[in-house]
Amino acid sequence: MPTPAAPSDDTPTPFTADDYRARMDRAAASAAEAGLAGVLVAPGPDLVYLTGYQPTAITERLTVLVIAPGRDPVLVVPTLEAPDAEKAVGAPALTLRDWTDGTDPYRVTAPLLDVDGRFGVSDNAWAMHLIGLQRALPATTYVSLTEALPMLRAVKDTHELARIAAAGAAADRAYEEILEVRFAGRRETEVAADLARLLLEFGHSQVDFTVVGSGPNGANPHHEAGDRVIERGDMVVLDFGGLKHGYGSDTTRTVHVGEPTDEERRVHDLVREAQQAGFEAVKSGIACQDVDRAARKVITDAGYGEYFIHRTGHGIGVTTHEPPYMIEGEERPVVPGMCFSIEPGVYLPGRFGVRIEDIVTLTEDGTGHRFNATPHEMALVE
Amino acid sequence: MPTPAAPSDDTPTPFTADDYRARMDRAAASAAEAGLAGVLVAPGPDLVYLTGYQPTAITERLTVLVIAPGRDPVLVVPTLEAPDAEKAVGAPALTLRDWTDGTDPYRVTAPLLDVDGRFGVSDNAWAMHLIGLQRALPATTYVSLTEALPMLRAVKDTHELARIAAAGAAADRAYEEILEVRFAGRRETEVAADLARLLLEFGHSQVDFTVVGSGPNGANPHHEAGDRVIERGDMVVLDFGGLKHGYGSDTTRTVHVGEPTDEERRVHDLVREAQQAGFEAVKSGIACQDVDRAARKVITDAGYGEYFIHRTGHGIGVTTHEPPYMIEGEERPVVPGMCFSIEPGVYLPGRFGVRIEDIVTLTEDGTGHRFNATPHEMALVE
Repeated sequence: MPTPAAPSDDTPTPFTADDYRARMDRAAASAAEAGLAGVLVAPGPDLVYLTGYQPTAITERLTVLVIAPGRDPVLVVPTLEAPDAEKAVGAPALTLRDWTDGTDPYRVTAPLLDVDGRFGVSDNAWAMHLIGLQRALPATTYVSLTEALPMLRAVKDTHELARIAAAGAAADRAYEEILEVRFAGRRETEVAADLARLLLEFGHSQVDFTVVGSGPNGANPHHEAGDRVIERGDMVVLDFGGLKHGYGSDTTRTVHVGEPTDEERRVHDLVREAQQAGFEAVKSGIACQDVDRAARKVITDAGYGEYFIHRTGHGIGVTTHEPPYMIEGEERPVVPGMCFSIEPGVYLPGRFGVRIEDIVTLTEDGTGHRFNATPHEMALVE
Repeated sequence: MPTPAAPSDDTPTPFTADDYRARMDRAAASAAEAGLAGVLVAPGPDLVYLTGYQPTAITERLTVLVIAPGRDPVLVVPTLEAPDAEKAVGAPALTLRDWTDGTDPYRVTAPLLDVDGRFGVSDNAWAMHLIGLQRALPATTYVSLTEALPMLRAVKDTHELARIAAAGAAADRAYEEILEVRFAGRRETEVAADLARLLLEFGHSQVDFTVVGSGPNGANPHHEAGDRVIERGDMVVLDFGGLKHGYGSDTTRTVHVGEPTDEERRVHDLVREAQQAGFEAVKSGIACQDVDRAARKVITDAGYGEYFIHRTGHGIGVTTHEPPYMIEGEERPVVPGMCFSIEPGVYLPGRFGVRIEDIVTLTEDGTGHRFNATPHEMALVE
């Protein structure tokens, strides 16, 4: 894996049919290695990653990419959607097989599968389709792709790293600008709208989340943004991201409206130290859980362990939320080219929360590289 | 079921915890009747319908509502999302059970299920969660909700019908306004953007699709909108809809830029006649497939059968696309309060397409009622 490219606002190098062919080949090889008879890919991030194809809507009509070692990949699609599928950049690297309303799509798919094979299936494939396949081929067995091939999309190539760098740089610019807006006296939702506007302004095509957690709302790590009017004296957690050129950004900074108390400053310093410890743990040969442990140890040692109530991080790529997960029990290694968040937090119920998050990759030279470069110090806003 | 209320732009009557309790009770009763040990409801339209709860994002973290006859409903949620779930309007009608990152959510869910029960599961539940449950309880079996309880959300109550009427009226206003915009010389995507703007202007919170299929693009029934510049002499299929106050709109009209040819007029008349025939078939006691047959017969008799390449309609409610389906083989009856599209079309490859669509319900008095009231005649635009 190469060293990450510098962020750029230029349109990135387009992926080609060969890129998608290589990804599908790699998926087939990984499937064979994992003892799978194949991989069943549903519309969503896996299909976008492997073929560039994104149906205009995900419906009850079966669309599935069948990748089996030693065979050419086949995309089963509703006849109605075949013209769109044919236009996908990856279409030349696969065979289309369409089925018409009123016929049984599982019967069309079944001949593509070993009758007693074990298959990896996209996490987000619809249960109804899995049930349909289990019924058509009762001797087949299934395992989710995250479990069977969790690292299918995890290791990014040069072009992907360049996109993640560009998305991170855009999110950083949004953060720099948000520090200039008014916080006190405005609703969280208003600041969130500012963040969304800024992400779009800096080239995002899609905003996935704009968390503005002020005061006690910051203590709910999954609070988005509400009607609460931000007050002087509030801590405010800002966690935002989305997709730019098809790849994700995700960064968090915790700012303060006016002067913080000593305790607020202490907790913020603690989270900052934990984030840094997680980052410094990113080296060749470590396991994903080591990143979690390194960050968590700082917080636990300071007596705040019970207030850090989520894992330390998640992967990012064609989605803003995917494997690998930086969590206790994830013993798989961090491999060069993987991109993931490091985002420890402390949440004091009813009072305030602090979270600091960067997207990080392990470089070829065996060290961590941050895709977010804005200061971790607590910014004071008005 | 009552007669549909008149459309209104006023904020509709909010649903209450009692409304959701009644829906969950009905789901439990239907499950028992269908011989199911329970229903497993995933985030998405089923969960919104039954509880009013919509997680801010659907992730790999398990959220599932377990409804079992004779027991209180339980919503299993990630601890992080519990505060949001507690705020759902339906929350007082259920018990929350949360699980923390690093623990096994299927072990938390398993004790809520009969070890060898047969369960209905939301169509769009993630395959990974179904696999997790199958592994935790190997003697359980599953069937999709569309197969087991297809009509779970199909019959709308008064408040729901009022919302669908309001959404339809808003879509009609958007259609009336779009006739005034310039077509010739503009890209399909520009007209599509106008349609989206109009839907939002008339109260939609979400635009699901804005199809603008001009000339040959109209012959692909799943074409959305592209870069093609609309020309004088084009047929243009306009199919658009979304959600207003949480309920769907979906209507199609086919317009013409300037004067049509005799053949274009003939095909348009034919589709109009087919749509009318489908509508007139909506009566007490008919099966869903009878609507399809009635519309299709008109087109087949005229020799265009092979160019009508999709089913005649689909249900609509908290989504714009759900059971019941008006399709050959769907023998279940049309019941008062069901709402669905009737949208026959003729698609002449490489040339043009025509589709006409209204949302229709069967009223208590046993006749069809259209929620779209704009003229079916071919509008001539500039």
